[in-house]
Amino acid sequence: MSSKAEKRARFDHVFEVIRDELVEYFKAQGMPQDATEWYIKNLNYNVPGGKLNRGLSVVDSVEILKGRALTEDEYFKAAVLGWCVELLQAFFLVSDDVMDSSITRRGQPCWYRNEGVGLVAINDAFILEAAIYWLLKKHFRADPSYINLVELFHETSFQTEMGQLLDLITAPEDKVDLSKFSLERHRLIVVYKTAFYSFYLPVALAMYLCGISHQAAQDPYALASSILIPLGEYFQVQDDYLDFAGTPEQIGKIGTDIVDNKCSWCVNTALALAAPAQRAVLDASYGRKDAAAEARVKKVFEEVGLHAKYAAYEEDAYRRIVGLIATIPEAGLGADGEVKLQRAVFKSFLDKIYKRQK
Amino acid sequence: MSSKAEKRARFDHVFEVIRDELVEYFKAQGMPQDATEWYIKNLNYNVPGGKLNRGLSVVDSVEILKGRALTEDEYFKAAVLGWCVELLQAFFLVSDDVMDSSITRRGQPCWYRNEGVGLVAINDAFILEAAIYWLLKKHFRADPSYINLVELFHETSFQTEMGQLLDLITAPEDKVDLSKFSLERHRLIVVYKTAFYSFYLPVALAMYLCGISHQAAQDPYALASSILIPLGEYFQVQDDYLDFAGTPEQIGKIGTDIVDNKCSWCVNTALALAAPAQRAVLDASYGRKDAAAEARVKKVFEEVGLHAKYAAYEEDAYRRIVGLIATIPEAGLGADGEVKLQRAVFKSFLDKIYKRQK
Repeated sequence: MSSKAEKRARFDHVFEVIRDELVEYFKAQGMPQDATEWYIKNLNYNVPGGKLNRGLSVVDSVEILKGRALTEDEYFKAAVLGWCVELLQAFFLVSDDVMDSSITRRGQPCWYRNEGVGLVAINDAFILEAAIYWLLKKHFRADPSYINLVELFHETSFQTEMGQLLDLITAPEDKVDLSKFSLERHRLIVVYKTAFYSFYLPVALAMYLCGISHQAAQDPYALASSILIPLGEYFQVQDDYLDFAGTPEQIGKIGTDIVDNKCSWCVNTALALAAPAQRAVLDASYGRKDAAAEARVKKVFEEVGLHAKYAAYEEDAYRRIVGLIATIPEAGLGADGEVKLQRAVFKSFLDKIYKRQK
Repeated sequence: MSSKAEKRARFDHVFEVIRDELVEYFKAQGMPQDATEWYIKNLNYNVPGGKLNRGLSVVDSVEILKGRALTEDEYFKAAVLGWCVELLQAFFLVSDDVMDSSITRRGQPCWYRNEGVGLVAINDAFILEAAIYWLLKKHFRADPSYINLVELFHETSFQTEMGQLLDLITAPEDKVDLSKFSLERHRLIVVYKTAFYSFYLPVALAMYLCGISHQAAQDPYALASSILIPLGEYFQVQDDYLDFAGTPEQIGKIGTDIVDNKCSWCVNTALALAAPAQRAVLDASYGRKDAAAEARVKKVFEEVGLHAKYAAYEEDAYRRIVGLIATIPEAGLGADGEVKLQRAVFKSFLDKIYKRQK
């Protein structure tokens, strides 16, 4: 079993390989030196450097599904798909940062804030997206799962974009209107904006790579989705809660959801519990760039018992997801002669998330 | 033979069909009313309403290739592909207008300048792109050409984005540096940013729809590209020239390429011909938001003989393209038993472009 650092180094090495492939293609189109240098900088600045949870989970899931160490070729293919997920995420993050006027990302200035970049970042985001399909074609064109992989990226992109639209029209940073918020709206945003691409996508890619086929009766992909979407929802609720309750030492940043008018689980839960006077405080103080207003909101969060509410949510979510995982037959689910969908894939995700503090 | 208005009305009707399909899918995902209304407005505002040359040319090309009127089903499929090209264009135009801080598009305010839209337009552009692949899957999944259609859109998108990057770094609106300009750079921008998606894409889609297959020896797709890329280049040079030389009555707008620091055929040709004193005028006056500076640039364009230079360019381009078209065997090119690639497809394009005044 390799250490976390070794795992990451191996995965990072594959990035260098595919980056060089992409750059070679770019040059082979006749693109001049200044454009090529820009492209390399775009890839290096925006694709690696994150926590890589999504990308690495493709590789982890393939290992669990096959139940053995991967050959060099199997590892490489799984890692390419992992990097495709990271490219999709980079496409979204680079453009989201422009849309949200964000300042920093992964401890460095957002890409668009670099000297000379500005709104060119929008086209750079498109180019990151284009790399996904170029890599799928290069490495999977002969694979029976090729069209499934391509369609999965299309569908997931569309879902994520729907979630981003919902989020942007529900919680515009400059216009606070809590009447648009609700726990149901929050759930829809979270499922579409985060859960599909962060949880379902990596596992479904791993399943396709292992040759798991769709089934009319009990489809392994539908079953995986029925577990991973609630898991992703739980993950994001936790993220929202930690933004409020986590210390900067724990979460590595200072939470800004309240001042940024985010449609977070915290404010939606508080809205559902607030007495009229508390509601008035939330309406008047949420989403204001003002520390005193933020403190008043936090006081309401405490008053309505958000910590206890979260603890109950987490226990309930954990129990529900454990129950969903138990619907997978112990011997796994799938057609005869194929790799089977295993409970262990989902347990591995759940264990990483349950009661995390960062 | 139907009139131009009838042709357009029939094509527009297909837009309504596919728009309704897309909106039904959106609603079926559980998207709430406000998001659905936003989506409908995005589609209606940004997709129809242009000249539709690109979209209609898919239908026209299929008719020429088949050499007969299309059945209802054939027409519908060709029109869906035509609207996919228009969706791709809408994706680019909505985002280009944000990147370029443009004011109007097709006689109305740019989408991002609508009340409440702003940078949400970036995500709206993504959603327009996503519609392409959703429509291809819905209408072509069972078609033998499905993967070719999907890959063609991927490849063309990447090429167009490369062209947009080249253009943005060569001619940033706020930083004039004519040393970066050249006719070679201009050609590269035009081919990548415009010719692939405006000329090769519609014809190649029509060819796939007609079942024309790739050939190892003399590939009809490679041959089509070898004609359509020069044709697209000629079209854009003409566009650049008309921006300078066309009257507002002819071109329906007032040319702004000089004040906008555009890497146009005109300035690149003038740079290649200018004496040192003229070059100094161009360096000092090009790309300035100032009518007197613009007039000085126009004077240099006249002095170097741009009108005659353009007339010679046009004659040469026309002759070259006629020659390229003649390389197609008179009986057409393609495998036995298949629809053949016909000269008439290209002649139809060339006739529409040659000596156009608007």
